[in-house]
Amino acid sequence: MELVSHRVAIAGVSGYTGVELFRLLSAHPDAEITWIGAGKAAGEPLSATWPAYGPTPVEALDVDAIASVADTVFLALPHGLSGAFGRDCRARGLQVIDLGADFRLRDPAVYAATYGAAHPAPELLAEAVYGLPELHRAALPGARLIAVPGCYPTATALAALPLVEGGLADWLVADCLSGVSGAGRSPNTRNLYCEVGEAAAAYGVGGAHRHVPEIEQTLGVPVVFTPHLVPMRRGMLATVHARPAKLPSAAALRALFVSRYADCPLVEVTDSPPSTREVRTTGRCRVFPTVDPVRGVISVFAAIDNLGKGASSQAVQCWNLSQGLPEARGINLYPDYP
Amino acid sequence: MELVSHRVAIAGVSGYTGVELFRLLSAHPDAEITWIGAGKAAGEPLSATWPAYGPTPVEALDVDAIASVADTVFLALPHGLSGAFGRDCRARGLQVIDLGADFRLRDPAVYAATYGAAHPAPELLAEAVYGLPELHRAALPGARLIAVPGCYPTATALAALPLVEGGLADWLVADCLSGVSGAGRSPNTRNLYCEVGEAAAAYGVGGAHRHVPEIEQTLGVPVVFTPHLVPMRRGMLATVHARPAKLPSAAALRALFVSRYADCPLVEVTDSPPSTREVRTTGRCRVFPTVDPVRGVISVFAAIDNLGKGASSQAVQCWNLSQGLPEARGINLYPDYP
Amino acid sequence: MELVSHRVAIAGVSGYTGVELFRLLSAHPDAEITWIGAGKAAGEPLSATWPAYGPTPVEALDVDAIASVADTVFLALPHGLSGAFGRDCRARGLQVIDLGADFRLRDPAVYAATYGAAHPAPELLAEAVYGLPELHRAALPGARLIAVPGCYPTATALAALPLVEGGLADWLVADCLSGVSGAGRSPNTRNLYCEVGEAAAAYGVGGAHRHVPEIEQTLGVPVVFTPHLVPMRRGMLATVHARPAKLPSAAALRALFVSRYADCPLVEVTDSPPSTREVRTTGRCRVFPTVDPVRGVISVFAAIDNLGKGASSQAVQCWNLSQGLPEARGINLYPDYP
Amino acid sequence: MELVSHRVAIAGVSGYTGVELFRLLSAHPDAEITWIGAGKAAGEPLSATWPAYGPTPVEALDVDAIASVADTVFLALPHGLSGAFGRDCRARGLQVIDLGADFRLRDPAVYAATYGAAHPAPELLAEAVYGLPELHRAALPGARLIAVPGCYPTATALAALPLVEGGLADWLVADCLSGVSGAGRSPNTRNLYCEVGEAAAAYGVGGAHRHVPEIEQTLGVPVVFTPHLVPMRRGMLATVHARPAKLPSAAALRALFVSRYADCPLVEVTDSPPSTREVRTTGRCRVFPTVDPVRGVISVFAAIDNLGKGASSQAVQCWNLSQGLPEARGINLYPDYP
Repeated sequence: MELVSHRVAIAGVSGYTGVELFRLLSAHPDAEITWIGAGKAAGEPLSATWPAYGPTPVEALDVDAIASVADTVFLALPHGLSGAFGRDCRARGLQVIDLGADFRLRDPAVYAATYGAAHPAPELLAEAVYGLPELHRAALPGARLIAVPGCYPTATALAALPLVEGGLADWLVADCLSGVSGAGRSPNTRNLYCEVGEAAAAYGVGGAHRHVPEIEQTLGVPVVFTPHLVPMRRGMLATVHARPAKLPSAAALRALFVSRYADCPLVEVTDSPPSTREVRTTGRCRVFPTVDPVRGVISVFAAIDNLGKGASSQAVQCWNLSQGLPEARGINLYPDYP
Repeated sequence: MELVSHRVAIAGVSGYTGVELFRLLSAHPDAEITWIGAGKAAGEPLSATWPAYGPTPVEALDVDAIASVADTVFLALPHGLSGAFGRDCRARGLQVIDLGADFRLRDPAVYAATYGAAHPAPELLAEAVYGLPELHRAALPGARLIAVPGCYPTATALAALPLVEGGLADWLVADCLSGVSGAGRSPNTRNLYCEVGEAAAAYGVGGAHRHVPEIEQTLGVPVVFTPHLVPMRRGMLATVHARPAKLPSAAALRALFVSRYADCPLVEVTDSPPSTREVRTTGRCRVFPTVDPVRGVISVFAAIDNLGKGASSQAVQCWNLSQGLPEARGINLYPDYP
Repeated sequence: MELVSHRVAIAGVSGYTGVELFRLLSAHPDAEITWIGAGKAAGEPLSATWPAYGPTPVEALDVDAIASVADTVFLALPHGLSGAFGRDCRARGLQVIDLGADFRLRDPAVYAATYGAAHPAPELLAEAVYGLPELHRAALPGARLIAVPGCYPTATALAALPLVEGGLADWLVADCLSGVSGAGRSPNTRNLYCEVGEAAAAYGVGGAHRHVPEIEQTLGVPVVFTPHLVPMRRGMLATVHARPAKLPSAAALRALFVSRYADCPLVEVTDSPPSTREVRTTGRCRVFPTVDPVRGVISVFAAIDNLGKGASSQAVQCWNLSQGLPEARGINLYPDYP
Repeated sequence: MELVSHRVAIAGVSGYTGVELFRLLSAHPDAEITWIGAGKAAGEPLSATWPAYGPTPVEALDVDAIASVADTVFLALPHGLSGAFGRDCRARGLQVIDLGADFRLRDPAVYAATYGAAHPAPELLAEAVYGLPELHRAALPGARLIAVPGCYPTATALAALPLVEGGLADWLVADCLSGVSGAGRSPNTRNLYCEVGEAAAAYGVGGAHRHVPEIEQTLGVPVVFTPHLVPMRRGMLATVHARPAKLPSAAALRALFVSRYADCPLVEVTDSPPSTREVRTTGRCRVFPTVDPVRGVISVFAAIDNLGKGASSQAVQCWNLSQGLPEARGINLYPDYP
């Protein structure tokens, strides 16, 4: 296929995923940012929200304005708003890459149960492609509505997919660690610097986290999912355990992962448990599978940047594939040390 | 029983657990520190290692010197050295409270397999009491050799004991998060500030961590144990999962925990998942059990300070009980906020 | 003098200085906390705001309720409110120890210019004692209204007082570093964990910070004061420079400081530049003076905990002196390492 | 002038400045990395030192090997070694961009007094260009030996140059804050995560820091320079004060800075005090001048990334200019938020 267009818009540039999109797309050799906007911060230069980001004006959210200058719009908006705004964008013919939750779940009843409101645009669910390229690469070229997965579902899926596909797991435990940026940028006491330091804790326990239905939709097996918040700004680690009927050898397990991800340029199978710092600011996932032969358990560890492979760079990866570009174009591979 | 003595010594005051012992015991109303020593730092004032800790001279490690001024010695020494030094201290009649690993495992063969060397004093293993007061309180009064548990075994056991004792777990998953002080104070690149920041990772995976035999000895069931390092100085969180044949209700599970720890002044059953900051610098464990009724799993969360309930304040708690003192005497209950 | 009373109240226990007061006073051998209250959080147990702090009920702010059960009230309230509430407390005969700004400046016109509102209780300014014990120790016994200095003025004054008193400075540069808790606990984007990490910056520059009049009132010379925010929760470092007409030797300068603080149990003159970690959670100031003989300049470094010697423990120190108790009673001397 | 060559080598890739050079140059559109080497880590793939950096082999330090494949070598080596190795590289005709200290000081006697050893290659000092482009831009095209300034001298100079050149300062106070990566990657207790957290402190006080002669050489006036270490990985803030005979207005001062840096694409004059997070991982300096009219003092604040504009990106900037390339080519302008 040929390249449809370079002209991209970013709606929601005042949040962490929005500015990360701006950072990636402004350096992307095949993208031209023609519009940025936000609910908050509209009417100000971008640098008012993000110092050092220059004078580009931040526009109010306006579908017609976007449609007049762009062919694709990346949505970094709250759920609910994202679905409604995305529907309007699709109505103007824009390609929509949605980083929010609204088009991820296939069943609107599950959406309503999970998010406590009717789905804002159920008629579009059939069109939406779930933008996990390592699972749905074939569906992405030409896709007009892409639902970029959440950070927890991305990390958990990349750790668990080879197990599930290989018949090695009929249920899973997933204990995941997230940096604080996953909670967004809204002011609240809980996320103050003085509250987060030296604080590691689980939350959304007992299957209550909103990402559980998305995770189980992707993997097709029950997942005992527990998110944890730890004191870092970016980064996500998924630790996934399965207890298969027959335990593979460590070598066979590794071969399974290497084979599964052979054509996935942004997934690396490592030789030791990965650290989130190895993927910081990148679009990569680093994954390590291991066996505990005494206890008959497989454990897999997957590290991503929650704002990179868990959000903005995965959105760019999806856009690349939708446009027929190389998958990793414009996506950072090297973390910043230190 | 009557109070044997107030005179205590600290061997290994140049490490993190050693200085924490000094901090606790110097404020303890029934303790008098009569000797402090260390391998490194001997011959200097304590303030040379720990600024603001005053001019108390740090002595070279010498059993006779200790025995001449103290009745109890707390050992905060590396494993191997700890066992040999503890043996010599016992030979002089000193009560030994060992924060190291050497007297924790009952079977010297398991010790040799775990630590790669013959046990330095197998003849003392029968005398050693495993110093987890919530499990062995009755054995502590009058004990002359106490093996204080490691931080991971403490947090994991306090989360899992009610499950195992209640027949709710015949195997367990334990994903634990530790602050960096658990790695000690030796200089190495891995624990530099620039390396640890923004870095969450598992290590000792696949059942390879040295604490696994200790954890399974305490709990008596297989434990899939995975330690993780996260960017904080102190603190430990154990997330433990069990899949019982019959899932209790949330209320019944909570009642089980409340009942189990009713007589344990340093364990609190909480109403929501605890954070490590809630126990920072304290001797408390905060524990929260929950059920996932859809997936049939119990999850329990236990937060401790790895240097407090996970090491030094647990040692003081054991000493209190060994001397007939109230269990929580001299132990901090309130964390420092922020 | 004799001890007037042990019964103390804390107004404003939902902030960082308030909970630090609770922590200190609940362990103070001569204090009994008989009442705690706050604007926010009233009606809940203390543990709702500060997990692990137990079920003590937090009361609504009510002067009569306080006067009926306490003899002293510590105010950890916002400025403006603090002055009005303190006035009412004095009218009921309560001793008032105010950690806020309202009674620090002697001149109500300066107060109005600094805080943008008329002073709430100018008639009480004559009674107020400025609670820097190292400067006004003689005025504290029996004082009924004590204005505890701010953290910046405390650190700057303790660094600079010997210079000014010794005729070594007719103007000063003070570059001060503060941990984030100095900004309080109100939710705002600026103090989020994700915003503060890796962020060092000056603010309130050009003489604009509200603490400047207080600093110059204490020192009596012009002070070029610049506060900086650095990524830590607690801690404050004052770096003060003076260019005297005649530079003393390093030894003479040190002797001056040692002599000045000989009777100050909470100030230590150190042998090298102090770090904020050496005073974390303590009530101490560590101070180090040095000379640059080539450039003819004296530099002094003073480290305090902004919530300790910079707020709550200084309040306790003042209360101790007002009651005839030993100055350092109930005040922590040893920092937590690490 | 024409572009001499794209082929660059990096000596010292196992340190923080070395890997930052690799990160920058591997993305630089006009550079081709043809050789990387290090003292430590030689013989291993780059990913053994820096996970996720791929299998490029790290070579042993060998001048002939470099000269056979590269035209320029970037030296990220310890001082002393850097000078000797640089001399040998020059003897093979290589262009040398030295990030170390050996060619910064013009006077070998000052070098000997500062570094405690005779200069390793005094015959090359005449050829060396001090690589602060904002001061020596004209000398950089075609330069064969460039001494890249240290991080403290860069930040201090960019804050102070307009003042000195404008006759507004005949002496200066410079209080500078540095992230921990400035101390390098060697293991030592002082830089452990557990030691640096919550720790702000001055060091090298009284004019004793090795960067003082370099700073005064650049500025030509006495500078009371005090470095401080604060808990962040990257970042540097210089706070500089001057007391001119006649104080300019705020507007005039700002105009002076804007004019001075009008042709400097990597220096931005800001509207408020800059934060180090605004330049993190970039090659920019953000600088803000202000006046305190009451006290007659100018204060200037300059923020850089100590590994960016303070080291590696400044080296690239120098190389760009030496090769006739646009100054900012390949240099990051946008910080990573958060």
